[in-house]
Amino acid sequence: MVEAALGSRLMVHALLVSDSGERHLRRLAPLLSPEVRVLRTSDRLFVGIADTQTPQGVAALVRPEPATIEQILQGTPLVIVLAGVQDPGNVGTILRAAEAFGATGAIACCGGAVGTANPFGPKAMRASAGSALRLPILRGITSEDLLAKLRNSGVKIYAAVAGTSPPRGSAPHSVLPWEIDWKTPSALLIGNEGAGLPEEIVRSADARVAIPQATATTLVGIESLNAAMAATVLLYEAMRQRI
Amino acid sequence: MVEAALGSRLMVHALLVSDSGERHLRRLAPLLSPEVRVLRTSDRLFVGIADTQTPQGVAALVRPEPATIEQILQGTPLVIVLAGVQDPGNVGTILRAAEAFGATGAIACCGGAVGTANPFGPKAMRASAGSALRLPILRGITSEDLLAKLRNSGVKIYAAVAGTSPPRGSAPHSVLPWEIDWKTPSALLIGNEGAGLPEEIVRSADARVAIPQATATTLVGIESLNAAMAATVLLYEAMRQRI
Repeated sequence: MVEAALGSRLMVHALLVSDSGERHLRRLAPLLSPEVRVLRTSDRLFVGIADTQTPQGVAALVRPEPATIEQILQGTPLVIVLAGVQDPGNVGTILRAAEAFGATGAIACCGGAVGTANPFGPKAMRASAGSALRLPILRGITSEDLLAKLRNSGVKIYAAVAGTSPPRGSAPHSVLPWEIDWKTPSALLIGNEGAGLPEEIVRSADARVAIPQATATTLVGIESLNAAMAATVLLYEAMRQRI
Repeated sequence: MVEAALGSRLMVHALLVSDSGERHLRRLAPLLSPEVRVLRTSDRLFVGIADTQTPQGVAALVRPEPATIEQILQGTPLVIVLAGVQDPGNVGTILRAAEAFGATGAIACCGGAVGTANPFGPKAMRASAGSALRLPILRGITSEDLLAKLRNSGVKIYAAVAGTSPPRGSAPHSVLPWEIDWKTPSALLIGNEGAGLPEEIVRSADARVAIPQATATTLVGIESLNAAMAATVLLYEAMRQRI
């Protein structure tokens, strides 16, 4: 994570290195600009401030810089919108997939049913394998403001929904992942792990997108893919078309 | 998980229900065959035997039935081979994706660099969301035996590798996920989280398959997708062609 921070566009204000972390410094040296202050401490004190059980002895002080909506909508946007993803591990995995598959940015909604785990929190950060430090990310926008902004910018909005059979005749229509033209400006909305996206948000999307599955639901209604897997697959589909 | 077990083809030998688990019994009742013994215990004793921190008070006694290679190779096989996947969470997620996308079975290799976490262990089981109870799974086969068996059965073998640029001129050739004809009998090999597949196994495959990525590797060589995400994406690609 420290390497990822040093290799990102973010400013690293300081490094904190414990006695046993010292051995990592040589590898990090080429990434260190002269402005980075390197502070030393003991292993015992380091364990006290570290978030992990067995810290590696190097920490970086970084202030994540939230992106603007304009940054995220640059070029031909492919935006992943987290609208109710509450597990920080899922948030991190989705950010990782977003970066890998060329998304132009991620948006974490706030408020009520669409409130999402902090992408810059320690668990999401780790699950993202550093993507949270590199991908343009916007936080703290309500879903109403966001949907209006996307619509005004000509971005098509796709709501990821579970299962293969949406309620009959319900707007918007349902499409398969590969029926979408991902080469046009697109935003993909991922909802809560249990409840999915709120129905009023799905209704305001341009289409529902459901991933067909051999076993759409089990006997007792357990969904076959979780939110992170579904997002990963849909972002892959977008990359496949865009490459 | 208990619901998944009761809904699977496996024989449930007994249920153990604690005082607070009693409230779940009504929901489970339609799934209970008369042969299932229902045993009662106190909440305090239940916590002592449960594997999770906050157990829900219902446990099932199930003996997983390993599949045979013949079962897994039925029809037009799509086999996922775990060859060195050590994180039980990844094993479970891969089994979940395999079931969702219609794999005919999963094989967990044993021994040395291809040794894989137990698919029937509690962590893998939970991460699989019950797929480990339903998908035909074979364990304890060496990679040599397995590769010979697959080859003799006319199954094409694809080795998932990281990055987009394999060593030049190295056999076998490298293909993109969508260049593979997944409608023919296929086996997909997934290797260790850090080291990937052993090179001698890759060399004996019919092709390497690498998932193209916007950021194939970061500045410091962190891979953009983890083993479970890569497997999920490749299984999706197979489903997309087979549907």
